[in-house]
Amino acid sequence: MTAPVRIVFLGGLGEIGRNCFCLEVEGRLLVVDCGLMFPTEDMPGVDLVLPDLRWILDRADDLEAVILTHGHEDHIGGVAFLLKELYAPVPIYGTDLTLGLLANKLDEAGVSDRAELRVFADGDRVQVGPFDFETIAVTHSTPHAVGLAFRTPQGVIVHTGDFKLDQTPVDGRLTDLPRFGTLGAEGVRLLLSDSTNAEHREFTRSESLVGEWLADLFHRHEEKRIICACFASHLHRVQQICDAAVESGRRIAFLGRSMQSNTRLAREKGLLDVAADDIVDISEIAKLDPRDVCVLCTGAQGEPLAALSLMASGEHKWVTVGEQDAVIISATAIPGNEMNVHRAIDGLIRAGAEVVHAGVADVHVSGHAGAPELELMLALVRPEFFVPVHGEYRHLVVHSRLATRLGIPDDSILVAEDGDVLEIGDDGVDFADTEAPAGYVYVDGAGVGDVTGGVLRERRRLADDGTLVCVVCVDSRTGEVVSGPEIMSKGFLRAEEEEKFIEEAIEHVIASIDAAAEEDALDLTTLNRHVRQALSRFARKRTERRPIVFPLVVEV
Amino acid sequence: MTAPVRIVFLGGLGEIGRNCFCLEVEGRLLVVDCGLMFPTEDMPGVDLVLPDLRWILDRADDLEAVILTHGHEDHIGGVAFLLKELYAPVPIYGTDLTLGLLANKLDEAGVSDRAELRVFADGDRVQVGPFDFETIAVTHSTPHAVGLAFRTPQGVIVHTGDFKLDQTPVDGRLTDLPRFGTLGAEGVRLLLSDSTNAEHREFTRSESLVGEWLADLFHRHEEKRIICACFASHLHRVQQICDAAVESGRRIAFLGRSMQSNTRLAREKGLLDVAADDIVDISEIAKLDPRDVCVLCTGAQGEPLAALSLMASGEHKWVTVGEQDAVIISATAIPGNEMNVHRAIDGLIRAGAEVVHAGVADVHVSGHAGAPELELMLALVRPEFFVPVHGEYRHLVVHSRLATRLGIPDDSILVAEDGDVLEIGDDGVDFADTEAPAGYVYVDGAGVGDVTGGVLRERRRLADDGTLVCVVCVDSRTGEVVSGPEIMSKGFLRAEEEEKFIEEAIEHVIASIDAAAEEDALDLTTLNRHVRQALSRFARKRTERRPIVFPLVVEV
Repeated sequence: MTAPVRIVFLGGLGEIGRNCFCLEVEGRLLVVDCGLMFPTEDMPGVDLVLPDLRWILDRADDLEAVILTHGHEDHIGGVAFLLKELYAPVPIYGTDLTLGLLANKLDEAGVSDRAELRVFADGDRVQVGPFDFETIAVTHSTPHAVGLAFRTPQGVIVHTGDFKLDQTPVDGRLTDLPRFGTLGAEGVRLLLSDSTNAEHREFTRSESLVGEWLADLFHRHEEKRIICACFASHLHRVQQICDAAVESGRRIAFLGRSMQSNTRLAREKGLLDVAADDIVDISEIAKLDPRDVCVLCTGAQGEPLAALSLMASGEHKWVTVGEQDAVIISATAIPGNEMNVHRAIDGLIRAGAEVVHAGVADVHVSGHAGAPELELMLALVRPEFFVPVHGEYRHLVVHSRLATRLGIPDDSILVAEDGDVLEIGDDGVDFADTEAPAGYVYVDGAGVGDVTGGVLRERRRLADDGTLVCVVCVDSRTGEVVSGPEIMSKGFLRAEEEEKFIEEAIEHVIASIDAAAEEDALDLTTLNRHVRQALSRFARKRTERRPIVFPLVVEV
Repeated sequence: MTAPVRIVFLGGLGEIGRNCFCLEVEGRLLVVDCGLMFPTEDMPGVDLVLPDLRWILDRADDLEAVILTHGHEDHIGGVAFLLKELYAPVPIYGTDLTLGLLANKLDEAGVSDRAELRVFADGDRVQVGPFDFETIAVTHSTPHAVGLAFRTPQGVIVHTGDFKLDQTPVDGRLTDLPRFGTLGAEGVRLLLSDSTNAEHREFTRSESLVGEWLADLFHRHEEKRIICACFASHLHRVQQICDAAVESGRRIAFLGRSMQSNTRLAREKGLLDVAADDIVDISEIAKLDPRDVCVLCTGAQGEPLAALSLMASGEHKWVTVGEQDAVIISATAIPGNEMNVHRAIDGLIRAGAEVVHAGVADVHVSGHAGAPELELMLALVRPEFFVPVHGEYRHLVVHSRLATRLGIPDDSILVAEDGDVLEIGDDGVDFADTEAPAGYVYVDGAGVGDVTGGVLRERRRLADDGTLVCVVCVDSRTGEVVSGPEIMSKGFLRAEEEEKFIEEAIEHVIASIDAAAEEDALDLTTLNRHVRQALSRFARKRTERRPIVFPLVVEV
């Protein structure tokens, strides 16, 4: 009997973001990706959401290495937080570009010394501890993404990573379909495959198509300055925008912190081909004819503090948008960002610009495989067992149904979720009896994990109806009000109405203290309860709102 | 010289929602639609957003009547609020269905006695005061919508209302293209036209197509119970769902308050053809074979308290969703609602249901005209002047560009916004020098207008970082701390970390009071400022957060 191999899913199975799983072989651990998630609107004040790393940290001594499939935030954004909690430096594997993107982040977080970066290339086979894996080139919306094949005592486990099957990628680097096929022919025990676009019925279009669209758009707007926004990590998109700019005789100004650092890195690594002469500093563009300029910036998701939104609200230091501008937003809004993107578009149009976006023109293609591609991957790898990964719950389920349609038996398809532990043993693949902690860990300011679901509930309640604070000094023997009550509010009522409200509320508070005095219940707990109830009830009656009430009775 | 005619835009030009404008002829006023808008995520706690009605109320004596183009909330939802503020009853014109939908709302608001409902039919010509208008049938996503043509001293003003050019509508009632054409041939001074889908490059598909898709879906899922969600006001969609249900041998259970009241009203008025035998009470469905049941419910936008979301979270009294169910969401998410819709879909899939939604199948068509239809309308009416209405700013601008492409001179196209006053005079159409108040009026609980932008800013800040309250009693002569400081928080930190934070914060507060005492600055204002600063700074330093701080120094 061979010992089972385990996979512990810590993030990305039930949400888009914070991708992270652990592979366990012979008691040793390999972490595959460690990403972050951007907060949704029901997480006010939260900056980032991380996977719960406790399961890893509890077994830090067993950790062999971290492997990164590509350089997107949802795959590498949690690494710095993991390193902060580890005592010893840990080897981190990735392609040259991925590790370059990571290094910037580790520098910023001041944890560069805790990682030992080890570059791998496409097709490399790596041994680390009891692990034996190879990398497989895949196409995605950032360069040099890889899938992974792990040779384990329980057979080969293939992980696609984020992928699409782009047959005409910008860099000519194809998804290594023959390798996936060869592995499939040799026998794959388990496939983990990207589910993001499982609901999309079409084969995802090639990135190089976007180049043609961009060339057309640049031609159509040749009389204008062009401002183009895209993801800073999408270096093929950046390349194609630069190509369109240069071909139409423009110089390019990179704008936005991540756009500047990523393009610098990519040019260093020979992954972005733009001549130095074709680049101009943003502070210089005012001197150029607008028709000779292309501003290439961040903010395609309408992020309030990114370059594009600042331009839209007329607050950008270097770029004032007006009728001389055509703005191309080369992206689609990620669910939840629609309102921000619309707000940016409205602001830009209001300023007089022409705005070309996904709602009115072809400007973007996805980086993830649609259903036909997912089926091809399943057909190539022909796994014994299948676990859809990387998606919200419905994506995982839709992906699992594709597998069913392709003839994989239902009991060989497992829809796993964050926290699930998978056991690959002699008798098959199944869920272990145990679960790993896998809740959302919120980062807010300097705090990691000190904001919990309960704190967020309080924040949402504060946001809904505001807060009322009431301080009153009471004579502890007689119950007489010595000073106050003083009532203050935030987020409750506008000043004009508040005055009258407070005037009446004071009477209710005094009456509630008098009532307590009559009952001779002059302890602080009782008094505070009386004041809270009096204020809450009056607020509800008068306004039908439920502000959070702070009663502060001071006994003198 | 003829006196000018004025149009005052109070809502709907710059947002989707709260549509409302006033027409002024010879000093008398006609209000055309008075709708509400649903709050966006940056308006926490807000229930509804209304147009600012002050401009109308200031001239209440001049008000002749209100005209409603159709029964959607964004056109009739503000009427009850208007009536509450008016002294005398006002005539309200609309089609039989529109007034029926309105009557329900006025009943609920207890203002039925303040309206005098006057039914018009398609093609009717109505005289009221100095106004002379006719109604023109248009197709839309609720039955019996109309456009309007006003004969004024300054020529004919045509208002399309919300429309599409559906050539095969479910009820056979076509947009009266010949009438628009005849008016155009006779000469139209000004056209106001729906801009919602101006960015859509395609002719909007016919509602009757949805009937075919639904029939297919019902057939494909004949072994399951079918739960179908759509807008309760979309009675043609409701009809088609009922038809598909009846044809597949199912009985229909209407679910959700508005679904029940709207279908009752529509059946009374002969606008919904479902036999009483084909309807079953929701409390009875448990007794039926799931294959014989179709639940037709509200909640297609993922509204947290509507039927569909309650089912998704397993909290619905009558319907427990499981593997026996196929759920069809016959709608697309309105921007801003995507996350709620996704949450509902995930919940339903998690419960075991098959979910068919706009992301994976054809289930919905829009109720608004796409660009080709807008061009047709412009070509038919051939107006001298054109003002795009009903849309966010970018929709209005894109619509105005369609008009430019069709040859309307640029100075005859006016992109107006909420608050703008348009003057139609002998010399042309132009903006008046004056503006009407047209900001958002927020409804929160019992309050209308008592939550302002400033209050919402406070709420967002409370939501971002929570609040800290600090009460401390100080001897007013010596500056000695007599009791406290006591510090409390909400939405700031989880309890485990809060204790330590407060312990340290107390020291900072005491030190700040000591500092004031040393400076002999023991007035309340100074003490409170010291406490606020000490707490804010400590919070920022420790957590990088900026909670709202209430300093409450009590002098004894």
